[in-house]
Amino acid sequence: MAERFAFTLKAQDGSARTGEIVTPRGVVRTPSFMPVGTGATVKAMFPEDVAATGADIILANTYHLMLRPGAERIAKLGGLHDFMHWDKPILTDSGGYQVMSLAKLRRIDEGGVTFQSHIDGATVALSPERAIEVQCLLGADIQMVLDECTPFPATRDEAKSSLELSLRWAERSKAAFASLSKPGQALFGIVQGSTYPDLRETSACALIGLGFDGYAIGGLAVGEGQEAMLDMVEVTTAVLPQDRPRYLMGVGTPDDLLQSIARGVDMFDCVMPTRSGRHCQAFTWNGKLNLRNARYADDATPLDPESACPAAQYERVYLHHLVKSGEMLGAMLLSYANVQFYQELMARAREAIAEGRFAAFADEVAQHYGAAGEPDDDTG
Amino acid sequence: MAERFAFTLKAQDGSARTGEIVTPRGVVRTPSFMPVGTGATVKAMFPEDVAATGADIILANTYHLMLRPGAERIAKLGGLHDFMHWDKPILTDSGGYQVMSLAKLRRIDEGGVTFQSHIDGATVALSPERAIEVQCLLGADIQMVLDECTPFPATRDEAKSSLELSLRWAERSKAAFASLSKPGQALFGIVQGSTYPDLRETSACALIGLGFDGYAIGGLAVGEGQEAMLDMVEVTTAVLPQDRPRYLMGVGTPDDLLQSIARGVDMFDCVMPTRSGRHCQAFTWNGKLNLRNARYADDATPLDPESACPAAQYERVYLHHLVKSGEMLGAMLLSYANVQFYQELMARAREAIAEGRFAAFADEVAQHYGAAGEPDDDTG
Repeated sequence: MAERFAFTLKAQDGSARTGEIVTPRGVVRTPSFMPVGTGATVKAMFPEDVAATGADIILANTYHLMLRPGAERIAKLGGLHDFMHWDKPILTDSGGYQVMSLAKLRRIDEGGVTFQSHIDGATVALSPERAIEVQCLLGADIQMVLDECTPFPATRDEAKSSLELSLRWAERSKAAFASLSKPGQALFGIVQGSTYPDLRETSACALIGLGFDGYAIGGLAVGEGQEAMLDMVEVTTAVLPQDRPRYLMGVGTPDDLLQSIARGVDMFDCVMPTRSGRHCQAFTWNGKLNLRNARYADDATPLDPESACPAAQYERVYLHHLVKSGEMLGAMLLSYANVQFYQELMARAREAIAEGRFAAFADEVAQHYGAAGEPDDDTG
Repeated sequence: MAERFAFTLKAQDGSARTGEIVTPRGVVRTPSFMPVGTGATVKAMFPEDVAATGADIILANTYHLMLRPGAERIAKLGGLHDFMHWDKPILTDSGGYQVMSLAKLRRIDEGGVTFQSHIDGATVALSPERAIEVQCLLGADIQMVLDECTPFPATRDEAKSSLELSLRWAERSKAAFASLSKPGQALFGIVQGSTYPDLRETSACALIGLGFDGYAIGGLAVGEGQEAMLDMVEVTTAVLPQDRPRYLMGVGTPDDLLQSIARGVDMFDCVMPTRSGRHCQAFTWNGKLNLRNARYADDATPLDPESACPAAQYERVYLHHLVKSGEMLGAMLLSYANVQFYQELMARAREAIAEGRFAAFADEVAQHYGAAGEPDDDTG
């Protein structure tokens, strides 16, 4: 396996791209969806099943892991891959987003952010340097700079000073990464700028000036709505270099993914497939189903006859029974089937791009997953 | 596969026996432990993993399934095996025990028992005939007569009239089974008699007079203590025919199993491995562990280096992290490892009996699982 990080574009179809990220731990086919393994586990799934869905890479959360079980502990045990029995690539976020959304009594200043752990109330400091140190201790293949995820809504001035702080942190993160990382590990910058097109451009250009292995688009899917989100994606990918992967953080629905791929995004992560799986929701090639719905009480159809996932071969009546009974197996099967649906969606997107028919493919999926959210066939 | 039910003894070592139950759906190697799949799922396990542990047969609960999703519904879908994706043998209890332990406002009379469902409060009637009808609708390979699980403690008179009622129900169950069952399905009688040796003999002899494919020992592990339980087992197996399987219901700890095998029992079921798995407890060849214990916070040893179970290869530090974090994967891995431990225990018991060294084997296991309950290595 290559000892360096590389990205190769293989085909383009309009602005949609398909390619490969090569890392020492394996190849990531793009567009790529990363299942979220917040606390060193993709919830309710065995790691070998996560791999079996076709996932090339997962995301883990720095914030959660630094608090429990601790980055130094994981490092001592040989790193996050060994710890969680996942030998393919792992991307870690920087922890900044979770500090804002989960921690109490946070204080942000030029040096970084100080907060109280949501687990035990301990006071914890996270600086750009510490965020990189933690990610290196975890052994993450793709690491993220510490940034401030600008709250939404934000005034132009707030968004501007926030992105400028993030840029200074990005520079410090890069310096820390240069001294702490191992060959083949990669560092991504994160574009901020709220919903202001010119600020998005400013942020992207400044990050490009610093130079990163890839570029993430952050601070979206935080309440601005799909249209504004896609506008910001389009503005940003227009200035990002062609030869680096682009990663839209924390997104999203099948439609969000396809619309963003159409605007040049290569990578995604979202808790949606696993969280939905724990809440009786299934993504299928025929639309989204709520397995609690009484209509499935006698439905002997497999969950998704079009899916190759072993979990999708279970009949809806059985899944209905499991979720109504509160059985863990319901969440296990639906999480598995949903993660596989997302992977199959990406696999078909890659194929469609390579064959120059991405727009037609996206239209076809939109029949079941339109822009209006994710139309649920139970309520339609 | 044979179209009839048969039991063959292959070896004996003292009173311990090893053999094979042949059913149309497969062979059950005895001594056999049946994981409990109460509501058509062995909790927190994929059915293929239950099979991978070496389980030849599982138990399902008539009471739960008749209430939800309903026996007629399952029959319409092709039976319980198809419904839950388990193609090996299934034993069902008769529902009587759960009526006593779970249902509200139960009323018992000569005809049967009437109760309110613990799920929705509906009034439900269960007679010996209906219990067999339900088990036939489910398609159970081994079925149980409806009995009254005599409460403990019971006076001699209470125990006597209770077992006499159970005997009359057994006769009616047998008649119903004769008209409703399919070739190859089997019906077991259930010996009652509380802790009164002569009543146990009375019950066993009367059932033998009626004639059943196998004999269960019921009404034990209900508070009488291990010594009294084993005494009753010994009294009962002494009168049961050699050429029929004996099944001790709802038991138990590893020590309970080995002590009962030494007294001639062939089959067991218990929620212990799965319930313990959901409560952070692991059965290993080195004793029982409580993974919540802080001593595992840095323990990089695999859960059970002696087990062949894939789940037992995960390190204790990781399992500790999962259970402390409330992650479902913790329960999934521990349930899997525990069920496999029970299967490995039975496999080694069968081997030891075949090789005439069962007593030595039981002594060896008793070093970690003594009679005093299950000594937990965390508290020792």
